[in-house]
Amino acid sequence: MKDTFERPVMMSKEDVTVMILSAKKQAGLTWEGIAESIGMSPVWTHSACMGMNAFPKDKAELLVAQMGLPQEAVSVMTEPPTKVWEQAVPTDPCLYRLYEIVGVYGPTIKAIIEEKFGVGIMSAIDFDMQITKVENPKGDRVKLEMSGKFLGYNSW
Amino acid sequence: MKDTFERPVMMSKEDVTVMILSAKKQAGLTWEGIAESIGMSPVWTHSACMGMNAFPKDKAELLVAQMGLPQEAVSVMTEPPTKVWEQAVPTDPCLYRLYEIVGVYGPTIKAIIEEKFGVGIMSAIDFDMQITKVENPKGDRVKLEMSGKFLGYNSW
Amino acid sequence: MKDTFERPVMMSKEDVTVMILSAKKQAGLTWEGIAESIGMSPVWTHSACMGMNAFPKDKAELLVAQMGLPQEAVSVMTEPPTKVWEQAVPTDPCLYRLYEIVGVYGPTIKAIIEEKFGVGIMSAIDFDMQITKVENPKGDRVKLEMSGKFLGYNSW
Amino acid sequence: MKDTFERPVMMSKEDVTVMILSAKKQAGLTWEGIAESIGMSPVWTHSACMGMNAFPKDKAELLVAQMGLPQEAVSVMTEPPTKVWEQAVPTDPCLYRLYEIVGVYGPTIKAIIEEKFGVGIMSAIDFDMQITKVENPKGDRVKLEMSGKFLGYNSW
Amino acid sequence: MKDTFERPVMMSKEDVTVMILSAKKQAGLTWEGIAESIGMSPVWTHSACMGMNAFPKDKAELLVAQMGLPQEAVSVMTEPPTKVWEQAVPTDPCLYRLYEIVGVYGPTIKAIIEEKFGVGIMSAIDFDMQITKVENPKGDRVKLEMSGKFLGYNSW
Amino acid sequence: MKDTFERPVMMSKEDVTVMILSAKKQAGLTWEGIAESIGMSPVWTHSACMGMNAFPKDKAELLVAQMGLPQEAVSVMTEPPTKVWEQAVPTDPCLYRLYEIVGVYGPTIKAIIEEKFGVGIMSAIDFDMQITKVENPKGDRVKLEMSGKFLGYNSW
Amino acid sequence: MKDTFERPVMMSKEDVTVMILSAKKQAGLTWEGIAESIGMSPVWTHSACMGMNAFPKDKAELLVAQMGLPQEAVSVMTEPPTKVWEQAVPTDPCLYRLYEIVGVYGPTIKAIIEEKFGVGIMSAIDFDMQITKVENPKGDRVKLEMSGKFLGYNSW
Amino acid sequence: MKDTFERPVMMSKEDVTVMILSAKKQAGLTWEGIAESIGMSPVWTHSACMGMNAFPKDKAELLVAQMGLPQEAVSVMTEPPTKVWEQAVPTDPCLYRLYEIVGVYGPTIKAIIEEKFGVGIMSAIDFDMQITKVENPKGDRVKLEMSGKFLGYNSW
Amino acid sequence: MKDTFERPVMMSKEDVTVMILSAKKQAGLTWEGIAESIGMSPVWTHSACMGMNAFPKDKAELLVAQMGLPQEAVSVMTEPPTKVWEQAVPTDPCLYRLYEIVGVYGPTIKAIIEEKFGVGIMSAIDFDMQITKVENPKGDRVKLEMSGKFLGYNSW
Amino acid sequence: MKDTFERPVMMSKEDVTVMILSAKKQAGLTWEGIAESIGMSPVWTHSACMGMNAFPKDKAELLVAQMGLPQEAVSVMTEPPTKVWEQAVPTDPCLYRLYEIVGVYGPTIKAIIEEKFGVGIMSAIDFDMQITKVENPKGDRVKLEMSGKFLGYNSW
Repeated sequence: MKDTFERPVMMSKEDVTVMILSAKKQAGLTWEGIAESIGMSPVWTHSACMGMNAFPKDKAELLVAQMGLPQEAVSVMTEPPTKVWEQAVPTDPCLYRLYEIVGVYGPTIKAIIEEKFGVGIMSAIDFDMQITKVENPKGDRVKLEMSGKFLGYNSW
Repeated sequence: MKDTFERPVMMSKEDVTVMILSAKKQAGLTWEGIAESIGMSPVWTHSACMGMNAFPKDKAELLVAQMGLPQEAVSVMTEPPTKVWEQAVPTDPCLYRLYEIVGVYGPTIKAIIEEKFGVGIMSAIDFDMQITKVENPKGDRVKLEMSGKFLGYNSW
Repeated sequence: MKDTFERPVMMSKEDVTVMILSAKKQAGLTWEGIAESIGMSPVWTHSACMGMNAFPKDKAELLVAQMGLPQEAVSVMTEPPTKVWEQAVPTDPCLYRLYEIVGVYGPTIKAIIEEKFGVGIMSAIDFDMQITKVENPKGDRVKLEMSGKFLGYNSW
Repeated sequence: MKDTFERPVMMSKEDVTVMILSAKKQAGLTWEGIAESIGMSPVWTHSACMGMNAFPKDKAELLVAQMGLPQEAVSVMTEPPTKVWEQAVPTDPCLYRLYEIVGVYGPTIKAIIEEKFGVGIMSAIDFDMQITKVENPKGDRVKLEMSGKFLGYNSW
Repeated sequence: MKDTFERPVMMSKEDVTVMILSAKKQAGLTWEGIAESIGMSPVWTHSACMGMNAFPKDKAELLVAQMGLPQEAVSVMTEPPTKVWEQAVPTDPCLYRLYEIVGVYGPTIKAIIEEKFGVGIMSAIDFDMQITKVENPKGDRVKLEMSGKFLGYNSW
Repeated sequence: MKDTFERPVMMSKEDVTVMILSAKKQAGLTWEGIAESIGMSPVWTHSACMGMNAFPKDKAELLVAQMGLPQEAVSVMTEPPTKVWEQAVPTDPCLYRLYEIVGVYGPTIKAIIEEKFGVGIMSAIDFDMQITKVENPKGDRVKLEMSGKFLGYNSW
Repeated sequence: MKDTFERPVMMSKEDVTVMILSAKKQAGLTWEGIAESIGMSPVWTHSACMGMNAFPKDKAELLVAQMGLPQEAVSVMTEPPTKVWEQAVPTDPCLYRLYEIVGVYGPTIKAIIEEKFGVGIMSAIDFDMQITKVENPKGDRVKLEMSGKFLGYNSW
Repeated sequence: MKDTFERPVMMSKEDVTVMILSAKKQAGLTWEGIAESIGMSPVWTHSACMGMNAFPKDKAELLVAQMGLPQEAVSVMTEPPTKVWEQAVPTDPCLYRLYEIVGVYGPTIKAIIEEKFGVGIMSAIDFDMQITKVENPKGDRVKLEMSGKFLGYNSW
Repeated sequence: MKDTFERPVMMSKEDVTVMILSAKKQAGLTWEGIAESIGMSPVWTHSACMGMNAFPKDKAELLVAQMGLPQEAVSVMTEPPTKVWEQAVPTDPCLYRLYEIVGVYGPTIKAIIEEKFGVGIMSAIDFDMQITKVENPKGDRVKLEMSGKFLGYNSW
Repeated sequence: MKDTFERPVMMSKEDVTVMILSAKKQAGLTWEGIAESIGMSPVWTHSACMGMNAFPKDKAELLVAQMGLPQEAVSVMTEPPTKVWEQAVPTDPCLYRLYEIVGVYGPTIKAIIEEKFGVGIMSAIDFDMQITKVENPKGDRVKLEMSGKFLGYNSW
């Protein structure tokens, strides 16, 4: 009673992510090094390798060549991502603290943006971010800098 | 069949928040102006006025005097806050975009912190934030700068 | 054991919404008529009256004058909204069918936008909508036209 | 202790979707092109290929012939779909913005429909949709046009 | 620091429901009797009295006159309802059993409808229902008869 | 480091469902035809084939013989079912409309049952259902007839 | 802009519960004593006083007379209850342990009932329960005895 | 790019449960018979076979010998269980009715325990249960008897 | 149409908590001082004042006398509590960290208890806790000491 | 239509956990023994073996050598963990009781910490824990000792 069709298999963004992680581990690379080798920032590069952003074609080809990935990975890396992220607040302490910050300070950020810019939002699409280590004798500090375009609401 | 006790009423942090918002509106103040008048940053000042941070006693007295709040507000403003924030991702577009950013880039921030600092987290307690308007001919940009102490996990 | 402070009361966007609904009912107005009288579209006008969009100051003053609302409503109507909407899919059949449409056709809309525009989204901020009645002998039809700016993802 | 029955395998709508996506990628087709080749709209065609609508038999046979799918796919494509869509608001920004629109403007759409048509709903069954790219010097715009039959509530 | 506006109060569908329940109790009426007196079925009448359906104007006036409700209830009774029902499966045993039936037999109803009618649904808008008591020596039985228009999916 | 036990496999109700669906498709049968051939109603037959009801032994043997299923399916088909159904309201439009009906009319059904029978419920265990197609020039109608024993609450 | 109607107030089952609790406290009664005085069991009596079961008219009149409740409470006590109980597992340790028992032993109870009775359920409607204190030198024990009619599933 | 490690496989409590169910079916045993053969009650025996309780070593060895299970099952059967049960109320009617009982009567059980024993709970750990069939001309009844040690709250 | 009954009001545990907090604030007391004055630990005393534990009668009378509470508070303070706590993980950082600890280390605590004691649990009823400040040049530390009776599972 | 890539496989922390559990079982070890052999505490050792903490490199090498794990496990054991724990309160009684404790006593712990230390939290990062068996004639007791650094909130 079995059907006779051959079930097709397509390479997914998850497959490419595992290939990149595996090649990175075997070659002993860092995200900073990988990013530099393709001329992009570490934050964007990691995010695109996780499948959360699409690679421009030249960047995908560069990365595939440098890390020895199969050629067909290029087309997968340039496809639009479906950005699925945790709908519940995540439990990992490093991730959780970020939600705690936007939970506690979200209404404050909204109020200050509205006071400075008028009614609207900070875009999460026309957006970039940098992460820096700031040395400090009382304990080093993580510095997150985010920049997003202000978008004012439309009236019609 | 009614009990005869008199139900006590205590001034709450929510009451003080409404008093501040009402006085701010009547006097035509801004968060930036209020913050400057008590020598604190606008982000922290707004957050404390919302009841999400405790005022040091001198700052509370200064604010109460300048805004004409009742004297008993001082003790309420210096009490430890119970930081209740939205457990579900909020729907307001300005707030939502912040969750979208930490949802999409959270695993990236974790990976970059671990690459730069070792195993641990960015503290949300020993933490501060600034918000700046960056003018730009293609559309002004919101700049968020966050700084938190790195805390390494304990082994024992 | 009662505290002695006087609890302040501020006019809210919800209060203004009830005032508008009450005045509209007593004067026998329609949303189309109200919108026309302030020179805006019916969709935007209803949404702003519900507190989901901020009025420009001149439009707020016009509406307050025409509907006989208290003068202090103007400042409330121009405040930035906090757009809280149903986090669960709503049960009212008219509202539910809209969610059913974006649930069933959402991935299709995403795929067609990406095919036509590249990787990015349709903005819900720089956005407008019209609703028209289209007469039809087999049963009249509702026509919804939405228009939103395409926003491409940033790489950096 | 193993049972000896042979577990049957049936071709599913998900299987056919993967076959279509794989053939589309290898042949370098677009949704617009596929739709045109079977004489249907791009929105409906993509939706039916995703398994969210049933193909009329002639359309299924046409598509199977043109894309080189196995013949037994025809009967699967004509089966009634079970339309399962995300019960939680999806996190992908392109999908999320659609929910944000119906969340923010849903009560407005309901009020305007009721004002124009009487008590009832816009059908999501007797329904169609078009997506167009509208060029604009300030940034191209996505135009969504939806049309659904008005259904009035029954009294009895 | 109190605002000086007078908060408006509008009669709601919930208010009218309580008035009807109170008048029904004082006059010792039944739903069957009320329905008969306005020439509608008991199911629809109860549902409309609960605020889940809109009264035609003549039926509202008849009910208001017969039950001695205030005249302004008429306009409230004719407004379109917002049909909010329990999003979680309700716990009351009588209500729960109905969900159990559609939960257990839902896929069966779908399959039989599709076999008999083709791809589509039973409308819940163009819909009616009767409830009858069927005497039976082994225990009386509740008979529910539902009738809804078949709606076929659109292809375009 | 592998354990050496042989993992046992048992035929499940899901396995039998797939066998029945596959045999039904290959033989071009309908639910109505299958039901008639074992002398039961279509609704109950479909439900039992889906694993939601247990077959009496003679009915199971009849079906196994007629559809050419493996003999060991008989014992699986007579096992008590574990009736797992969607805890969230399902999204498929045909299923959803059923929940909408019991959501909107549930309190009405409860009130009418209590008025006609006294305090208690309609059983979902001692229960049966018929589905009929009613032809109608304005559009054919689906008729659902449910019958359940009334059960009065116990006092002790 | 205020409406002029008088909002009606009806005595609810919650109101009667508070009256009973208040009278019980002032008279120093126990549930066992109250139950005995109306000739019912303590479990049923408490449950009915909480509004979770309907009183027969004679029992309601007896209780109202004995506890000095207002006469109009009788009709409220005889109305059918809407049995709303905690949809989430409750946190109170005494309540939680009961859920833990049915969670851990539920599938066992189902299996044993099916082995002893055939396919069906234990009714929660034709049901009663007793609670007894069993003295024991190692620590007294709570004895719960439940009895429910077996209901076999219908085939048709 | 594949790692070269051999993934270890351990026999789990779920594996043992399937082995027991398979052997029980092939030998035509009942839970009552299995329980008697190892000198324990049917309720506890079923629960332990489902992996919800740990077997004492001698009972595990007896069962393994009698049912012909592999020897290494003994150590798995004596391991402490992780008691995972349905966090949502289950939908199977036989299981659901148990939750309905503790939902409706939970507060009553708590009140009666507190009246009889003082402040505390019935233990779900030092606990046992019996299930009996009680024949009855009006329909046989299921009798559940639970017994748990009373635990009083600590003050310190 | 208003009912004529007088709605009874009973003093609740929440009322007593507010009275205690208000009296504590006016008298400038600490939890440590209050606990010492009634001869109990600070943890238990705070918990009982929050309504999460029942006071022995002598302790309640002592506290009422010392803090000047109304006499009828005594009977409320000795009633069994209904321990309702946050079903979702709380957002306040101080509370959240406690959940993070039991979330991360829960399976470890279970494994170590089972290794040291056998199959069973640590009681949360026969339980006590102390909190101490431990001074430390690298930053003071909070010490939590919990002690609960081990309860072994019953077999029968 | 199959893609031709080779799907890579990486050893995960879950793989290493199973290897450790399997080797522990075959060698008859205890957590206390394993912890002692690498010079760490049992609580931390179990937690790290579960993948919830990262091993320092020397400890990972020691464990791999002593338990005969594959060499490539070392790098996996030293990677930063992603601490995923149950977002819903777990149902296993031993785990549940821990949540019950922090649920019931969480606000008390917060209040006592704030009274003793000022506004801030107990760190769950700079944290350690011990578990001890305390013999007691009335029943042995589990002693949990937790110690975390106090972190005061920042003002800026």
